[in-house]
Amino acid sequence: MDIAALLTSAGINIAVCVVLFSFYSVLRKQPSNVNVYFGRRIASQHSRRIDLCLERFVPSPSWILKAWETSEDEILAIGGLDAVVFVRMLVFSIRMFSIAAVICITLVLPVNYFGTDRRHTIIPFESLEVFTIENVKEGSTWLWVHCLALYIITFSACTLLYFEYRRITNLRLLHIVGSPPNPSHFTILVRSVPWSSEESYCETVKKFFSHYHASVYLSHQMIYKSGTVQKLKDDAEHVCKVLKNVSLEKTCKPSFRHCCSVAGTNSFKKISNEMDIVDGRTGNTDMHLETTTKECASAFVFFKNRYAALMAAKVLQTPNPMLWVTDVAPEPHDIYWSNICIPYRQLWIRKIATLVATIAFMLVFLIPVTFVQGLTQLEKLQKMFPFLRGILKEKFVNQVVTGYLPSVILVLFLCAVPPVMMLFSSMEGSISRSERKKSACCKVLYFTIWNVFFVNVFTGSVISQLSVFSSVTDLPAQLAKAVPAQATFFTTYVLSSGWASLAFEVMQIFPLLCNIFQRFILRLKEDALDSSLSFPYHTEVPRVILFVFLGFTCSILAPLMLPFLLIYFFLAYLVYRNQIINVYITKYDGGGQYWPIAHNTTVFSLLFSQLIALGVFGLKRSSVASGFTIPLLIGTLLFHQYCRQRFLPIFKSNSAQTAIDMDLRDEHCGRMEGIYEHLRLAYNQPSLIEDDSTPPHSVKHHEDMDSGQSSSEDMEKGNELIKKDRRRPVQRSVSLNSDKSVLGLKL
Amino acid sequence: MDIAALLTSAGINIAVCVVLFSFYSVLRKQPSNVNVYFGRRIASQHSRRIDLCLERFVPSPSWILKAWETSEDEILAIGGLDAVVFVRMLVFSIRMFSIAAVICITLVLPVNYFGTDRRHTIIPFESLEVFTIENVKEGSTWLWVHCLALYIITFSACTLLYFEYRRITNLRLLHIVGSPPNPSHFTILVRSVPWSSEESYCETVKKFFSHYHASVYLSHQMIYKSGTVQKLKDDAEHVCKVLKNVSLEKTCKPSFRHCCSVAGTNSFKKISNEMDIVDGRTGNTDMHLETTTKECASAFVFFKNRYAALMAAKVLQTPNPMLWVTDVAPEPHDIYWSNICIPYRQLWIRKIATLVATIAFMLVFLIPVTFVQGLTQLEKLQKMFPFLRGILKEKFVNQVVTGYLPSVILVLFLCAVPPVMMLFSSMEGSISRSERKKSACCKVLYFTIWNVFFVNVFTGSVISQLSVFSSVTDLPAQLAKAVPAQATFFTTYVLSSGWASLAFEVMQIFPLLCNIFQRFILRLKEDALDSSLSFPYHTEVPRVILFVFLGFTCSILAPLMLPFLLIYFFLAYLVYRNQIINVYITKYDGGGQYWPIAHNTTVFSLLFSQLIALGVFGLKRSSVASGFTIPLLIGTLLFHQYCRQRFLPIFKSNSAQTAIDMDLRDEHCGRMEGIYEHLRLAYNQPSLIEDDSTPPHSVKHHEDMDSGQSSSEDMEKGNELIKKDRRRPVQRSVSLNSDKSVLGLKL
Repeated sequence: MDIAALLTSAGINIAVCVVLFSFYSVLRKQPSNVNVYFGRRIASQHSRRIDLCLERFVPSPSWILKAWETSEDEILAIGGLDAVVFVRMLVFSIRMFSIAAVICITLVLPVNYFGTDRRHTIIPFESLEVFTIENVKEGSTWLWVHCLALYIITFSACTLLYFEYRRITNLRLLHIVGSPPNPSHFTILVRSVPWSSEESYCETVKKFFSHYHASVYLSHQMIYKSGTVQKLKDDAEHVCKVLKNVSLEKTCKPSFRHCCSVAGTNSFKKISNEMDIVDGRTGNTDMHLETTTKECASAFVFFKNRYAALMAAKVLQTPNPMLWVTDVAPEPHDIYWSNICIPYRQLWIRKIATLVATIAFMLVFLIPVTFVQGLTQLEKLQKMFPFLRGILKEKFVNQVVTGYLPSVILVLFLCAVPPVMMLFSSMEGSISRSERKKSACCKVLYFTIWNVFFVNVFTGSVISQLSVFSSVTDLPAQLAKAVPAQATFFTTYVLSSGWASLAFEVMQIFPLLCNIFQRFILRLKEDALDSSLSFPYHTEVPRVILFVFLGFTCSILAPLMLPFLLIYFFLAYLVYRNQIINVYITKYDGGGQYWPIAHNTTVFSLLFSQLIALGVFGLKRSSVASGFTIPLLIGTLLFHQYCRQRFLPIFKSNSAQTAIDMDLRDEHCGRMEGIYEHLRLAYNQPSLIEDDSTPPHSVKHHEDMDSGQSSSEDMEKGNELIKKDRRRPVQRSVSLNSDKSVLGLKL
Repeated sequence: MDIAALLTSAGINIAVCVVLFSFYSVLRKQPSNVNVYFGRRIASQHSRRIDLCLERFVPSPSWILKAWETSEDEILAIGGLDAVVFVRMLVFSIRMFSIAAVICITLVLPVNYFGTDRRHTIIPFESLEVFTIENVKEGSTWLWVHCLALYIITFSACTLLYFEYRRITNLRLLHIVGSPPNPSHFTILVRSVPWSSEESYCETVKKFFSHYHASVYLSHQMIYKSGTVQKLKDDAEHVCKVLKNVSLEKTCKPSFRHCCSVAGTNSFKKISNEMDIVDGRTGNTDMHLETTTKECASAFVFFKNRYAALMAAKVLQTPNPMLWVTDVAPEPHDIYWSNICIPYRQLWIRKIATLVATIAFMLVFLIPVTFVQGLTQLEKLQKMFPFLRGILKEKFVNQVVTGYLPSVILVLFLCAVPPVMMLFSSMEGSISRSERKKSACCKVLYFTIWNVFFVNVFTGSVISQLSVFSSVTDLPAQLAKAVPAQATFFTTYVLSSGWASLAFEVMQIFPLLCNIFQRFILRLKEDALDSSLSFPYHTEVPRVILFVFLGFTCSILAPLMLPFLLIYFFLAYLVYRNQIINVYITKYDGGGQYWPIAHNTTVFSLLFSQLIALGVFGLKRSSVASGFTIPLLIGTLLFHQYCRQRFLPIFKSNSAQTAIDMDLRDEHCGRMEGIYEHLRLAYNQPSLIEDDSTPPHSVKHHEDMDSGQSSSEDMEKGNELIKKDRRRPVQRSVSLNSDKSVLGLKL
């Protein structure tokens, strides 16, 4: 591939981007697309009327200005801490690769270009490999330039990382302290409550906490089994029992077979409701038993202050670590209700199974990637498919196929990955939606780095030899051979996958098509068109980190990639800020948990680039440069360890000082009673709410409503919202107020 | 090596053992050796008169009977939980290898022996390799016998391990609940107290805990800088200051040079004491400043109940994880005072440095091991040293050299390892002696398994090829080739290193020689001869585990080793019980922390043996047997994970339930006041105690005395002991009662 082909690729991409961005600036002004491009505004302002300027059909850069001008505080208010962390990742990348680009293009690029005594052709027809480190001849004394560049990059990366970590840590602390009283601070989730034949789980929980945490225990709330299968089963049992009772009264005898067939149709809510009234009359004691069987071995336990809840969550409760497992409760909107009833004993098996499934998925994915990589080696392709020879001879087709097509196919395949990983994370048993997304994010990240980078590197350069991983000690040398050879592919990858993905992101192609389909073909009403997407951190964070990884790895080896990368990060900065401001709804806040992932991967990228540099210096027989790289490796490892010690614990748990200070502040203001009152209503299990409402799709709808209510909103407001809600949830068991017979009636 | 050579080796070892054991049974009856062989009894009974029978010079097996009859409860009372855990390790090994021996000798051995259609000579001249799996021909259908044996061994090992873990966990819980009030349960160690220019550390600690833990904070006690260098520096400064003051009064002017020379001799305690009185008169305010500078940024903080202390120890205190680092305090006798003042910020660097040093040490150790291994290959040796050819031709010499000498040299080299590892663990910054010993135990364990097993396997079989570790995927195959070839060496290793080490252990050669030297050459008095050794878990646990590891690895491959191994474990059971009962003093109790180490290594051994079996089955082309081994590997991994979940947390931390129950019990009995009183006196820093007593060697003596006082003794008794102690320690700063001016006077 030569410079001309690269420029062709860049040209195509720039054209695509410009067209799409202009198109976006027009489309966003159309009233019919408001719910695609302004989802967040609709949700927060509760109105559909957005002021639209007159020039509806003229492309304008106003959205860029708006995205540029929005301050970090506004982002924090709109998108929560996670959004700020994501923006900070981009800011870090821009700063980092500005430094790297300046250093590498002024220092490293000339050394690479004049590395061997060859006759240079005119630059457009110069092969891209002339600009990589492969062009430097063996034993060259100029390799110290690369080593110096590596030192500068490492030092600036560590410095920037340290300050970012410190800044985000402070932001997180301020966010926790400054936010209004959060029910999750007072609540713990208890799982694996021991089963006893004498008393219900509810009584067991009450007994345990009022004995061992008497002074701080406030109340608790049981969790009930939900899920389609469980609901069908429960309904069937219920109806059978009720019908039997009714039959005794009314002397009509429906057979059990009939009952089962009713259960199969899943549409006997009304019967069930009627029977409730019958039950109310008969008032049989069987209902008590039924309550016990429907309870999960899990409960939310509320404490009188934050410190007590923190303590109870962090300390081993009983000598059997598999019983009374406590954990900090997620925020009410963040709870992933489907998983909360999974028995704790299953969790470790689920985790292992998911891990195995993920690894298997990563390996199976090799097949399409290997095929894609074949396209960059046209000669092989021509041999395999002789009929293509005619077409591939044409120069333009050739350039498109080598420069563009492989990346596009790869991107299309990669689209299937995030949903699969999300599914794995759900199966893993995460109890909160933010945790699930974070877990999916890690999986997608490993997947991306493995499949985009490593597999491309190894299949690309040593395509027939898959036994590379059998040798460990000469891995740096292998990488040193393989990575520079693949640098051109990664440059085109930045162009196609990077730039294009941003354009597609801002266009929101899929929701746009859905919207058009629903609006003009199904002709749905305005109200039914709420899309309410939340930010897809599990796809975007890995994407950005992948480019950071590619940037570090290729900065010294093939500095020509850096300008393209820098453009990507600038565009990403604008696009994602725009999306945060306008499109995505913040349903829950993960509290900046993505930063440790980004930090760790960045340090890994640094270490990896140093390792490759070590290998390259070894291959080029520059013992001085290799020698100087080793202290850099050790220094980076020490830096990583220090950051782990200094910052990571704050992302794992709240500190006693913070909790006690907040408690004292609230006690001082006399807000505690209000908080206790709110606690009783904070955790509503959606499946229970649904029981009282007739439409079968109300669960989803309600969940969306619930989620739209931002966690950073004030509690009083939350209270009001709950009061406004017509489907006021039934309080099944706020134990201190609960009464068994009442419970029986309501079921 | 043939059966005859093995029997020669066994014969030598049996003879050595019988002689040494008989010798021991005589020596232990000599009154002059009482302090060597009955150190514990002397310490616990405070009397030197042991009833000795008349037949002083006749060997007798009475000690064996005594060791056999002692019950586990007695062992627990005498040696603490660690001793019981160690004995349980031996019991597990005996049970496990009894099963393995029966299975392997009845099933596997015949299959190995008749594995190929060869002509067998008479058994004494049969090569040992005929009894290993190497003798089974490729593609043999009889390999399912080995697979079956592997299944039986794995299942019985997992079952036994599970029940042992459960038993030891219960024992640990009972021990915690049943033992008398322990000061460490009420105390936390706070490190990295932030420095402030306005107030002393003592005031900072008081302010922090009385603000954030007001309801449960009792008092605290600062830790002062100690250590030889610090002491010299402090003393010099002190004397200079005092002399200056005195000179103002008495108008005599000693120069600073003089003062320094005094400091150099380290014998001016008396001056220091006199000056204290002078200080008392002048009462200058400088002393206040001095107190501040001498304080460490660490303190013991006492709480009103166990639960509060547990909470404070487990939860992050402030948003900066590098400040106010809390941890459960070790028991008073268990504290390793020299390390307690190490700044917390240094710890992570120290840990990394120690890790690097340990790995470097392990690698450098290769050199003697390679030499030792050369001895088993006589032909090579004869080529290298032609002058030895004459001697080595003789049959007996040949047998001794191949069968015995390599192991002896290896054992001698290994003697140097535990002290070095102990040194590393001290440098690492462990704050308690039990933690230090546990850390050293792990290091010695890794070292032993690496250097005895892996290096022998790889240097022995592929002596010229050290690049084995470059290939990872064919590691099982490499091991499968190498391990059976080295099985004979390990059999002799069990004989020489195992059996002989027990004989030397019971003889206590080194203390015995020391005793003779001191008693008959230095002619020291009885009182000065206290040896007071504590059980060397850091050498004995790794040794036993190494033999378990060898047993699992070789059980299927070379079953002829198992009877010898079984004899070793039986002897070890008797010898170590005897040593626990009679010799070693329990200075501190680690709370059974050695069991998780033993458990993990045993599971690792199991996995490793399965991996080797997989390789062997692969080499022998038995796809059925290989196929059946893989589920076994997965099952073992799942078992390990389950045990980690189920039992490990209990070894990491006390549970809230236990702590609260104990608190309630003590409150009910009205014992709390007594406990608080004792807390004030429990933690005495030895360097401060020494300041008041004149003899320079009193620190060590006092430390020994302190340590002799078993942690499981009753608190009242402990109180009495302290009262009896003439060198009653000065309470430097039990803050609630402390008064700055008083402090100044006492210094």
